[in-house]
Amino acid sequence: MLVIGEKLNSTRKKVREMIENKDVKSIQDLAIKQVEGGADILDVNSSAAAGDKEENMKWLVKTVQKVVDIPLCIDSPNAEEIERGLEVHDWSKGKALINSITGEKEKLNRLLPTIKKYKCAVIALAMDERGIPDNSKTRVEIADRLIKILAGIGVALRDIFIDPLVVPIGTNDNNGLVTMDTIRRIREAYPEVRIVTGLSNISFGLPERKLINQVFMILTMGCGMDAAIIDPTDKRMMAIVKAAMALLGEDNFCGEYIRAYRKGKLTLEK
Amino acid sequence: MLVIGEKLNSTRKKVREMIENKDVKSIQDLAIKQVEGGADILDVNSSAAAGDKEENMKWLVKTVQKVVDIPLCIDSPNAEEIERGLEVHDWSKGKALINSITGEKEKLNRLLPTIKKYKCAVIALAMDERGIPDNSKTRVEIADRLIKILAGIGVALRDIFIDPLVVPIGTNDNNGLVTMDTIRRIREAYPEVRIVTGLSNISFGLPERKLINQVFMILTMGCGMDAAIIDPTDKRMMAIVKAAMALLGEDNFCGEYIRAYRKGKLTLEK
Repeated sequence: MLVIGEKLNSTRKKVREMIENKDVKSIQDLAIKQVEGGADILDVNSSAAAGDKEENMKWLVKTVQKVVDIPLCIDSPNAEEIERGLEVHDWSKGKALINSITGEKEKLNRLLPTIKKYKCAVIALAMDERGIPDNSKTRVEIADRLIKILAGIGVALRDIFIDPLVVPIGTNDNNGLVTMDTIRRIREAYPEVRIVTGLSNISFGLPERKLINQVFMILTMGCGMDAAIIDPTDKRMMAIVKAAMALLGEDNFCGEYIRAYRKGKLTLEK
Repeated sequence: MLVIGEKLNSTRKKVREMIENKDVKSIQDLAIKQVEGGADILDVNSSAAAGDKEENMKWLVKTVQKVVDIPLCIDSPNAEEIERGLEVHDWSKGKALINSITGEKEKLNRLLPTIKKYKCAVIALAMDERGIPDNSKTRVEIADRLIKILAGIGVALRDIFIDPLVVPIGTNDNNGLVTMDTIRRIREAYPEVRIVTGLSNISFGLPERKLINQVFMILTMGCGMDAAIIDPTDKRMMAIVKAAMALLGEDNFCGEYIRAYRKGKLTLEK
């Protein structure tokens, strides 16, 4: 299970201000805390901050990688920002991931040469010009097309991260099942491809969102999801991930689980 | 999701003593608390208590049903005790369930005429004379045979509860997966049959057992389990069940989830 730390995102007001103020210490603290919590990769998004957007991304990537030894997930709706992030990413710390492409042709065609040049890993969303499909069949078709395009330019299957997409269950009872079914089908068709979600959207509009998010994390892991964009400083979420890994046969003799317990990391606190 | 309250079990020292002392008030309190927590059925087991075992079961069934309006799950390794329980069960409160038969021929043949006579619901364990199979294929074969035998004497599929069996993950990394795969295969072959587990065995020997049990509850619900023998007074477990129901599309417009929240029942406490 690959944990992608979600907190360095400029859609969060505090982080946006940190970027605008070039607050090196706060950004680095937030990076370090996520690594200490168990992040394998850190998502970095600076798009919502005022100022020169391409310079902001370069600053954020460099500032974070000065203090952590893991790769980053360069996150932006804007192809230029992604390219600037890749330019300054420290590849000795691992392979950069970009977030994201979709089946939408314009951005896809704009980014394919960049992906080929940097040989980075890629998050690909199961949607296209028509928006987010309301059924798993169409989402799988789009994912399948994107996997073939990426593999065609030389991206290894292990470097392709399909996002099955998550729509709130508050708007339709079926929305959780559609995501779960999409995950199962992609996992079956492509055992090597990674499947990743940012799952918190599932609980939009409902009370006790953390409870829903945690339960959905487990249900999607049970379907074959093997990466998630979550808050690694959320102790209960991280404890749940460890327990699920042990139950899914991905933790030899429950070794990781028992080590996490000994370090006091299996808290059942809220 | 059918919640079978597990607490009235004489393998628990306190309950054993309540039965031996014929402590009506304590037994009835424990019954009422489980119903208030959300139990649909209460499991009753008196086998570990000293005294006349058949009289103990009759006393327990009658004592509990004086104060609750739900059916009981008559739980004993002993066919005679099960028969005494069925004799005194109040059928106006719902259909009694018996716990359990297995593929072991002697007890099975002993209980089939009783099942036919009372038209009760039945928990059938996916094991036989050879013990608990270490693989899902054999468990499914045994379950399949038991379903055909029970259906053959007129038990409706909705009244057959298959227990896929749960063996600790501490002894083999695969044990959780075997249970999950057994559930998936039975659910696929028999959409109407109920699937039930007493899941706490999964965490035997590990620290923070509640965490493992709660995560396994969600994973097995995701595979199609639709009944569980659990502690309905465990608020976090019951909150998790409500969240999982909403995520699995079994809660119209998340109505039950939101009602539980308004009643203060979605606690995230330990």
